[in-house]
Amino acid sequence: MSTIQAAVLRGVDDLVIEERPAPEPGPQEVLVRVEAVGVCGSDVHYLKHGRIGDFVVEEPMVLGHESSGVVVGVGSKVDPDRVGQRVSLEPGVPDLTCTECLAGRYNLCPNMQFFATPPVDGSLATLVTLHEAFAHPVPESMSDDAAALLEPLSVGVWANRKAGTSAGSRVLVTGAGAVGLVAAQVAVACGATEVVVSDVNAHRLDLARRLGATDTVDVRRTGVRDTGFEPDVLLECSGHPGATTEALRALAPAGRAVLVGMGGDELPLPLGVLQSRELTVTGTFRYANTWPTAIALAASGRVDLDALVTGHFPLSRSEEALLAADVDEHAVKSVINPQL
Amino acid sequence: MSTIQAAVLRGVDDLVIEERPAPEPGPQEVLVRVEAVGVCGSDVHYLKHGRIGDFVVEEPMVLGHESSGVVVGVGSKVDPDRVGQRVSLEPGVPDLTCTECLAGRYNLCPNMQFFATPPVDGSLATLVTLHEAFAHPVPESMSDDAAALLEPLSVGVWANRKAGTSAGSRVLVTGAGAVGLVAAQVAVACGATEVVVSDVNAHRLDLARRLGATDTVDVRRTGVRDTGFEPDVLLECSGHPGATTEALRALAPAGRAVLVGMGGDELPLPLGVLQSRELTVTGTFRYANTWPTAIALAASGRVDLDALVTGHFPLSRSEEALLAADVDEHAVKSVINPQL
Amino acid sequence: MSTIQAAVLRGVDDLVIEERPAPEPGPQEVLVRVEAVGVCGSDVHYLKHGRIGDFVVEEPMVLGHESSGVVVGVGSKVDPDRVGQRVSLEPGVPDLTCTECLAGRYNLCPNMQFFATPPVDGSLATLVTLHEAFAHPVPESMSDDAAALLEPLSVGVWANRKAGTSAGSRVLVTGAGAVGLVAAQVAVACGATEVVVSDVNAHRLDLARRLGATDTVDVRRTGVRDTGFEPDVLLECSGHPGATTEALRALAPAGRAVLVGMGGDELPLPLGVLQSRELTVTGTFRYANTWPTAIALAASGRVDLDALVTGHFPLSRSEEALLAADVDEHAVKSVINPQL
Amino acid sequence: MSTIQAAVLRGVDDLVIEERPAPEPGPQEVLVRVEAVGVCGSDVHYLKHGRIGDFVVEEPMVLGHESSGVVVGVGSKVDPDRVGQRVSLEPGVPDLTCTECLAGRYNLCPNMQFFATPPVDGSLATLVTLHEAFAHPVPESMSDDAAALLEPLSVGVWANRKAGTSAGSRVLVTGAGAVGLVAAQVAVACGATEVVVSDVNAHRLDLARRLGATDTVDVRRTGVRDTGFEPDVLLECSGHPGATTEALRALAPAGRAVLVGMGGDELPLPLGVLQSRELTVTGTFRYANTWPTAIALAASGRVDLDALVTGHFPLSRSEEALLAADVDEHAVKSVINPQL
Repeated sequence: MSTIQAAVLRGVDDLVIEERPAPEPGPQEVLVRVEAVGVCGSDVHYLKHGRIGDFVVEEPMVLGHESSGVVVGVGSKVDPDRVGQRVSLEPGVPDLTCTECLAGRYNLCPNMQFFATPPVDGSLATLVTLHEAFAHPVPESMSDDAAALLEPLSVGVWANRKAGTSAGSRVLVTGAGAVGLVAAQVAVACGATEVVVSDVNAHRLDLARRLGATDTVDVRRTGVRDTGFEPDVLLECSGHPGATTEALRALAPAGRAVLVGMGGDELPLPLGVLQSRELTVTGTFRYANTWPTAIALAASGRVDLDALVTGHFPLSRSEEALLAADVDEHAVKSVINPQL
Repeated sequence: MSTIQAAVLRGVDDLVIEERPAPEPGPQEVLVRVEAVGVCGSDVHYLKHGRIGDFVVEEPMVLGHESSGVVVGVGSKVDPDRVGQRVSLEPGVPDLTCTECLAGRYNLCPNMQFFATPPVDGSLATLVTLHEAFAHPVPESMSDDAAALLEPLSVGVWANRKAGTSAGSRVLVTGAGAVGLVAAQVAVACGATEVVVSDVNAHRLDLARRLGATDTVDVRRTGVRDTGFEPDVLLECSGHPGATTEALRALAPAGRAVLVGMGGDELPLPLGVLQSRELTVTGTFRYANTWPTAIALAASGRVDLDALVTGHFPLSRSEEALLAADVDEHAVKSVINPQL
Repeated sequence: MSTIQAAVLRGVDDLVIEERPAPEPGPQEVLVRVEAVGVCGSDVHYLKHGRIGDFVVEEPMVLGHESSGVVVGVGSKVDPDRVGQRVSLEPGVPDLTCTECLAGRYNLCPNMQFFATPPVDGSLATLVTLHEAFAHPVPESMSDDAAALLEPLSVGVWANRKAGTSAGSRVLVTGAGAVGLVAAQVAVACGATEVVVSDVNAHRLDLARRLGATDTVDVRRTGVRDTGFEPDVLLECSGHPGATTEALRALAPAGRAVLVGMGGDELPLPLGVLQSRELTVTGTFRYANTWPTAIALAASGRVDLDALVTGHFPLSRSEEALLAADVDEHAVKSVINPQL
Repeated sequence: MSTIQAAVLRGVDDLVIEERPAPEPGPQEVLVRVEAVGVCGSDVHYLKHGRIGDFVVEEPMVLGHESSGVVVGVGSKVDPDRVGQRVSLEPGVPDLTCTECLAGRYNLCPNMQFFATPPVDGSLATLVTLHEAFAHPVPESMSDDAAALLEPLSVGVWANRKAGTSAGSRVLVTGAGAVGLVAAQVAVACGATEVVVSDVNAHRLDLARRLGATDTVDVRRTGVRDTGFEPDVLLECSGHPGATTEALRALAPAGRAVLVGMGGDELPLPLGVLQSRELTVTGTFRYANTWPTAIALAASGRVDLDALVTGHFPLSRSEEALLAADVDEHAVKSVINPQL
């Protein structure tokens, strides 16, 4: 097993399957045979634009960061009994000793090494290595797809944790993409008794309802504020500035908004509303300490990840997987199987 | 309607149904025809002992504080449209302006007037008056029983709020009485993925499982710590000092314990464990701001209150209702219907 | 004592001293002889513009809401021993029973009655009445001025409480008006070890340093971000959108911003920075439960309120007091003495 | 520099100064010439009893864990510019990757390596090695003593952080040993406006007042509850069960108690008080993320550490330093200088 296959982004619109030397696990690393990789909007964005904000693809880079697999090798300091273990890969490894890491906010580590964030290669490959602490064992009952999608689920867990969603919360989720759909499911799992999802795509709103949303709003026809719904939590997953501002104005006094969706550099914040209702607004950057929760939610059936998968692709058809949403409005989450 | 019937405690083991003058609502009060009153352990304790701690029954006192009914009259400052509204009665009215009230901790108000806490009469009567802000409207779909049992549900909501139960929490509930059973249900509703309930009564443990507990421990046969379960939240609802200490020792590092059950004045706190794991221990005294959450949880079906009811009694058989648990180990919650 | 003198705003730029009938305290109210009233920017704004946002002066209204005095009469339910007590007046009385009030967030009460917020008359008068719970006794050692200025101090306490300022915090205060100066002092009192104040007025920056700021930035010459200071707390007290955005960009990862200054309806929020550093932004609306803290801070000398007073005026010269800042760049806080 | 001198505990009452091979820094370690080591009660306890709870000295062990010095060598991955840097040594190095570490609670790491906790050698030696992230640079203005005493200061910072001490807090500190004295100082620094310290040693109470306590109680003569003081925070630093229970009973509603002092395995917890006032009780185990705060507090003069030092000793007189408190009731903190 001296070489691997990997989906390498060489430039804008230039994704190729390359043969590369197989990686060797460092002393504290595991070597993982990758079984499933979910496609994320960031992969698509890198493919189409070659950058996301300050992160620019300057050298060829393997894509992919939502992944699961099986441990097939371990470094010198890792328990060899881990070989054979099915794992979900947390894609970012921080330096562990900076101020942010020691404070438990390792997602804010300035030295983070994160799959498929330039210049770090991603996991859309037949084999990858990862620090053993970030390769989380999953139960046998969990599918490879679900194990890979613990990554977007973590985004939803983190958003709800930041929002303090709890029993009786009234939650508005703007945007019914994969992240919005997991955020909504986690909100329900946290005890929210009203979870309203808004989007412009009727298929996704249908799916939101099937996954537990108590109501949906098709914002092509109805403004969120016209519904009379007064949420105390906003999970903004659309990245659409207009939707965000509108949703902020809908929040109840003391409401909390968590801005997950990326979009534009400046958001018009309604200051008077923020002050007179004492709203709290925060943004999320990845997640920290979410895998145990995500595993528990998925394994217990509180969140359904398999329902998000709308297509499976072999590694050779990675580009097609990335562009699925462009050609099919039903597409929510494509999964690539590097071993196929 | 110039007189009412009420279940009056005149002394230890001396409960009578009395005719009394009908109450008149004050300016900010509603007059409520009481439809259902749950029997609480405190009612039983007053009946048998005439006191709970420093609260001593010195004058005849109406029992009952878990109640629901229908608004049949309003005071001068209350919207007359409330007449006909079905309501759940929050049994304690604080002074609203002390430091504790203004800080949102009105349950700690030193001037609280609480149903069936000496010398304040309770709600086990055909009619009662209450400050309108504490008579909470309930949806039509909610039964009178459930509306009455929002009171013990509030105890469970409050315990979980204090504990910070959230998605992925591992919760140990010691004691499967009515409070333990609602605490466990709320824990599940808050996203706890392991909710283990312990008790000595196999019937109650069966019920706990039916209501969503992921596991149970019959402590006559197995110690909680022998199960290997390492909870991060303890909801102590047994009032049994030995069970409490044992359960505290089972907690994971940074675990939080909420002591709900009353029992004895001094609890042997395992100091070394508290410190080396940095456990947090708190106690609850009633609840504050829980009705909206309790209503949402019960109305949405996230918590099943009707399942707790193991017997209905007319007002005339109130004493039998109070003593039901003494004669039937299946008894969990008796409900008295003052209109019968 | 059948009439009072009051400073009444009849319209834009139309402030007159009127004789009015003396108020009578309601059952739970105290009657207060007003000794000192601080001039707030909102008073000036009403004078010049007749409105602040949605609050429009449509009927003649007494100005003033930063006030202290002596109890000279009590309502029927108030302890008559309060007569003679020196008090600081918390200017807003909420309804006490709405959801916000019961939750301890009475500043968000939709039925708030607040001095000098239309249509409620303010306290710039020889006598006023107020709910007794909002007339806070102050120690003899505290001056009338300081007792009046507990109101702006409360704004500073509230901002720091929202920000979670604590031992070792690095705090940036933008704007060195009266609110900025108390916010900075409270930050120091809370243990902040770096408290940097920015403004365009050198006199105010001098005062900031004398009151404990560890450094100041004259933003006419130096941008905050050019100083290399990386605060973890921002207390925005300037109301200047450009300063706010610049300051937000200066915050450290996980930084918290509290927007106190009012200014414009839409603030350009740097979304990418908010997300990549997971900043938290909130706004304040008045304050809740701050008087005990404010009294303790002022009485213990941890905060110096008298140092803010740059001019005293009799009631007859109220307009001059309001316009002092227009004619004197040294002016920080004018105090009006209604008894003079 | 091939050997070092170290104070080695060989058994109960058997402390010797030994020559040992000089340590070599690992790749991420610094080599530190130790300049000052504070004597902690735990050192004394190990000397007299050979154990603390489950930690038993089974092999000869170097004592000492409150230490400062100068970097004189670095491992291969450490910036060589650190040589010459004055540092305060955080004595515990966790594994960095367990659940507790990643969550920011590294003090609860099960794999912690902590100076002078069996079987890990301490820092009472001429040279020690330490992970570079735990050797914190200190400003030139800070004395070697103060830099060493950042360790006990960290205990005080941690206690106050757990307690949520803030502006206007009323704090009771039971026990005026070194930890109580730093806890009290930090409480003042956090804005507490009443800080009452209790002890049985008049000298220490004097020192407490000089260091900022607003009042003291000599519990040989007066019970804390007899003073009428109703704290909202208790920082228990005496380890005396009777004092702890008495102090808990003194707490105001919603009060928070942090149990820092070690003493006995079971504490009689007044359950009724805990519940009726909804007190929160927690314990501390060392600290996490406290050095930056401790450095800022000491460097800014908000906390005076040099005032705690009541004796300096060369390494050869280490035993005398450890036993100083037995022979001199004025003794608070002995400091040993290994280079002397």
